Amino acid sequence: MKLAILGLGKMGGNMARRLILGGIDVVGYDRSAETVNTLATDHGLIPAESVEDAVSKLSGQKIVWLMLPSGAPTEEQIKDLIPLLSEGDIIIDGGNSNYKDSQRRGVWLAEHGIGFMDCGTSGGIWGLENGYCLMVGATLEVAKVIEPILIALAPAADRGWAHVGPIGSGHFTKMIHNGIEYGMMQAMAEGLDLIKGKQEFNLNLAQITELWRHGSVVRSWLLDLTADALKGDQNLTSIAPYVADSGEGRWTVMESVEQGVAAPVLTSALQARFRSQDATGYSYKLLSMMRNGFGGHAVKTK
Amino acid sequence: MKLAILGLGKMGGNMARRLILGGIDVVGYDRSAETVNTLATDHGLIPAESVEDAVSKLSGQKIVWLMLPSGAPTEEQIKDLIPLLSEGDIIIDGGNSNYKDSQRRGVWLAEHGIGFMDCGTSGGIWGLENGYCLMVGATLEVAKVIEPILIALAPAADRGWAHVGPIGSGHFTKMIHNGIEYGMMQAMAEGLDLIKGKQEFNLNLAQITELWRHGSVVRSWLLDLTADALKGDQNLTSIAPYVADSGEGRWTVMESVEQGVAAPVLTSALQARFRSQDATGYSYKLLSMMRNGFGGHAVKTK
Amino acid sequence: MKLAILGLGKMGGNMARRLILGGIDVVGYDRSAETVNTLATDHGLIPAESVEDAVSKLSGQKIVWLMLPSGAPTEEQIKDLIPLLSEGDIIIDGGNSNYKDSQRRGVWLAEHGIGFMDCGTSGGIWGLENGYCLMVGATLEVAKVIEPILIALAPAADRGWAHVGPIGSGHFTKMIHNGIEYGMMQAMAEGLDLIKGKQEFNLNLAQITELWRHGSVVRSWLLDLTADALKGDQNLTSIAPYVADSGEGRWTVMESVEQGVAAPVLTSALQARFRSQDATGYSYKLLSMMRNGFGGHAVKTK
Amino acid sequence: MKLAILGLGKMGGNMARRLILGGIDVVGYDRSAETVNTLATDHGLIPAESVEDAVSKLSGQKIVWLMLPSGAPTEEQIKDLIPLLSEGDIIIDGGNSNYKDSQRRGVWLAEHGIGFMDCGTSGGIWGLENGYCLMVGATLEVAKVIEPILIALAPAADRGWAHVGPIGSGHFTKMIHNGIEYGMMQAMAEGLDLIKGKQEFNLNLAQITELWRHGSVVRSWLLDLTADALKGDQNLTSIAPYVADSGEGRWTVMESVEQGVAAPVLTSALQARFRSQDATGYSYKLLSMMRNGFGGHAVKTK
Repeated sequence: MKLAILGLGKMGGNMARRLILGGIDVVGYDRSAETVNTLATDHGLIPAESVEDAVSKLSGQKIVWLMLPSGAPTEEQIKDLIPLLSEGDIIIDGGNSNYKDSQRRGVWLAEHGIGFMDCGTSGGIWGLENGYCLMVGATLEVAKVIEPILIALAPAADRGWAHVGPIGSGHFTKMIHNGIEYGMMQAMAEGLDLIKGKQEFNLNLAQITELWRHGSVVRSWLLDLTADALKGDQNLTSIAPYVADSGEGRWTVMESVEQGVAAPVLTSALQARFRSQDATGYSYKLLSMMRNGFGGHAVKTK
Repeated sequence: MKLAILGLGKMGGNMARRLILGGIDVVGYDRSAETVNTLATDHGLIPAESVEDAVSKLSGQKIVWLMLPSGAPTEEQIKDLIPLLSEGDIIIDGGNSNYKDSQRRGVWLAEHGIGFMDCGTSGGIWGLENGYCLMVGATLEVAKVIEPILIALAPAADRGWAHVGPIGSGHFTKMIHNGIEYGMMQAMAEGLDLIKGKQEFNLNLAQITELWRHGSVVRSWLLDLTADALKGDQNLTSIAPYVADSGEGRWTVMESVEQGVAAPVLTSALQARFRSQDATGYSYKLLSMMRNGFGGHAVKTK
Repeated sequence: MKLAILGLGKMGGNMARRLILGGIDVVGYDRSAETVNTLATDHGLIPAESVEDAVSKLSGQKIVWLMLPSGAPTEEQIKDLIPLLSEGDIIIDGGNSNYKDSQRRGVWLAEHGIGFMDCGTSGGIWGLENGYCLMVGATLEVAKVIEPILIALAPAADRGWAHVGPIGSGHFTKMIHNGIEYGMMQAMAEGLDLIKGKQEFNLNLAQITELWRHGSVVRSWLLDLTADALKGDQNLTSIAPYVADSGEGRWTVMESVEQGVAAPVLTSALQARFRSQDATGYSYKLLSMMRNGFGGHAVKTK
Repeated sequence: MKLAILGLGKMGGNMARRLILGGIDVVGYDRSAETVNTLATDHGLIPAESVEDAVSKLSGQKIVWLMLPSGAPTEEQIKDLIPLLSEGDIIIDGGNSNYKDSQRRGVWLAEHGIGFMDCGTSGGIWGLENGYCLMVGATLEVAKVIEPILIALAPAADRGWAHVGPIGSGHFTKMIHNGIEYGMMQAMAEGLDLIKGKQEFNLNLAQITELWRHGSVVRSWLLDLTADALKGDQNLTSIAPYVADSGEGRWTVMESVEQGVAAPVLTSALQARFRSQDATGYSYKLLSMMRNGFGGHAVKTK
């Protein structure tokens, strides 16, 4: 079995390595020649100097796996790949694309006779060692072809990967997964914040999170990571109170609005990140101004 | 009709003036002798040099109106008043006390034969001119005695004051009023924040809030104040993004938890203020740390 | 001054009447011939039997005002109007369209030399009497032409209407207005729900809302309406616990997600409506199932 | 090592069994004689016919572990135990008491020379097999005495139990644990609700939750249970959309209000349960009424 991976960053590079370890031949291309060379030298990647070169090193039914940023980079790459591929070839988008884009791309590629699979990929930097959780949207036919690749990437042959439904449903499932992840993280952060705030008890967050890992209801992989990280400076002095958000948390909230289904926790988790990103606090200024207006309350000036 | 007011700050002082204008004799005491003297000289207050002095200047059925900070100051003052009063006299708490304290105090004072009224007072610094909105909890008997005072304080003889129920219910009603106020303010602040954020339209917040005052569904006194305030610097450059909260917003949320009734908007409005007060952002730091833990996402350092 | 109004429902019909009272000639068309006839007979509308007929009754620079449901009906109508109009004519969308649609339509119509104005219209059924609040997005040129119409519709010549910015900004401003309206309504509903839930005080909601109308911080038009409605059955026995939502509440939340700006109150208000619409309660079932799973808690069966 | 357990329900009974398996002598009493007898006959419990009897079967430094409902039952039991115990004896509250009650009881018992330990206990019905997660608040002295019991209950000798701080801190830590649990459950329920709502994909929730258990970021014990439960009827037809809440979720929200720390996710999770418990939907009726008032929108009648 052979495929090409385009994009060998944190995720793509580790996936290539896990596939090679699983006996799959992997042609790889990345904008960074150094990345390609290192993977070739140290891990057995078949290096490619360009997308064209990568495709030319495949034969028969060609399989190209994209691990690129969602949006324009993925869109452009698919556009550029079409003339290089033939009927029956398959493009897999393993990145974090919006599922509606994947649905649209599935139709678009089908017009060129090219198969498409959207593969939501979870596991982060730990996937190389533990295996990835793979949520696959595709036709039965395409899913069958890709199965050996999924088995090599997943934690085990019979688990951690699944063909969940038609094109788009893989990225949809991954989107919801990330929405839940936001909510779980926020739940944990709020709880720990309240423990920290209870100064009279002077509790040790590292001790408590480690304790909860064993036998408690909240035990989880996120807790494992949190307990591990808190073993250092519990005040997190060196970390800025700023939380980035990626597309999937936002899309999950939009999905809830489109469906007309309340998702207050997933939404609050996203909004907490927005708050962390808000350097101006204009809404707070407005509130302070209003309070002053009706109550003559003192306004805190800078 | 004659009464004593203890506490002549922003609220108490203006209330004394409105009562005097309404033909009521007002004895006043405040820790600041200067405040007392000014009100006496300029507005006809009967000045008192101490609480004892104030009470001694009343006769017959004595009425003492407290306009003090809630909590200990009000509690202490009531305690000190008991020996100075006789059976049938009346204490009114016009401040922002917790309604459970008022219920307790009603029972406590009844044991001394002293009547009690809790009077939730809304209107802020504008009450002097417009009249106050008065939410009264008391027995029918006490409410009847105080009626002329309420009429003088309210915007009109037949509106803006009401005996809503038994002792405690006045402050309860005021508490909910303030909870709603938090929610309305927050709704407005969020909407204006989104208008500000829509940079491509470069909208004028002063123009829009003024516009909404006429014929729109959101027209309200809070909007009047907001439109007025936005006539100045719309960027609110001189105002810090910090919003204080008083007891009543917190008590409203606790009431909802005790009742087991969802109040997401009143709660979110309170939490937005908490966020504005949080200088550390520890929960954000935790989230950033977790993201780094599982995704190898870059952590923004200070 | 003369214009045609297409769509004479609750909003359009009343606007036609207010314009006629203001001395404007109004040609009107509606799918319901009866509606057209009644307005013609009773209120002086110039009746039209079709869109073509309506347009043919205009002359010079033709002005067509749409009061149609947003989405497809408005889109189709604009499409059908294009061949009937000439360069320099103006279409106004006074409905609740998404501002992005309005921006797109502005560009589209400009390609045909037709002017466009998006006019967010607030005031509901009370606008006939009180005047409408009009938020206008247009070029300066178009806004100038329409000014006499706006003056006739607004509560007064110098207030209640404003040209807030370029095409799209009128509907954007109206969208935010409605988002705020959702939040204010929800704040009020939550507070009143807590008053209702405080059974020990047995409070009278009609009395309290009427009371708050005078001198309180929460006085507002929404409160006026609420106080009026609560004069009847306070238990609202005949009303189902179901709250519809229109597009604008949803779009406001999507706008906050797109901007990356937290709007927890506006969002919670929308989600409360979603909850009210959810007949199945699947998420609650899931929670009950989970509780049973880990705690052996009894599951309430239907 | 020997102790008495009072309260042998789902939690207490299984804890007794685990202790006995761990080589501890357990005297047990429960209001249900049948429960006591079964545990005695089948699992080696030393049966007691009354609290007095249970205490009398202990000797030396007596240790009594309470597994009773929080509030009055625990309070009464402690009161009744005091005359039966001597200086240096120890009472452990392993139930879900409010940490402030535990702090108060610690002081109260100390006045009688009796030691106290609050032990937050997580693990539910699975604790018998997997061990319990134990969060202990006590003096160093008391914690040292109880250590062998904690080791026998926990998943392993060196993990799953910890002396986190002074009296009260055990129940505080458990309270926060449960708050986080509410948030995690709600995050999961919301995500699954959105998957269910995406009818076009017709996704299989059992497949997806099982899939996520392997390699995904959201893998957790709650997910394990959920995946297991969803193997049956995914529509959860037999389960009512009603979610009970226990004290700890409410106390967590109150703690956040008292600390002035925003906890939107923990709060939203609690409020979702409140919503599920609300059979009347009065706030929805109010909103529907308001909409009708200003917009003439049709009110859905029952």
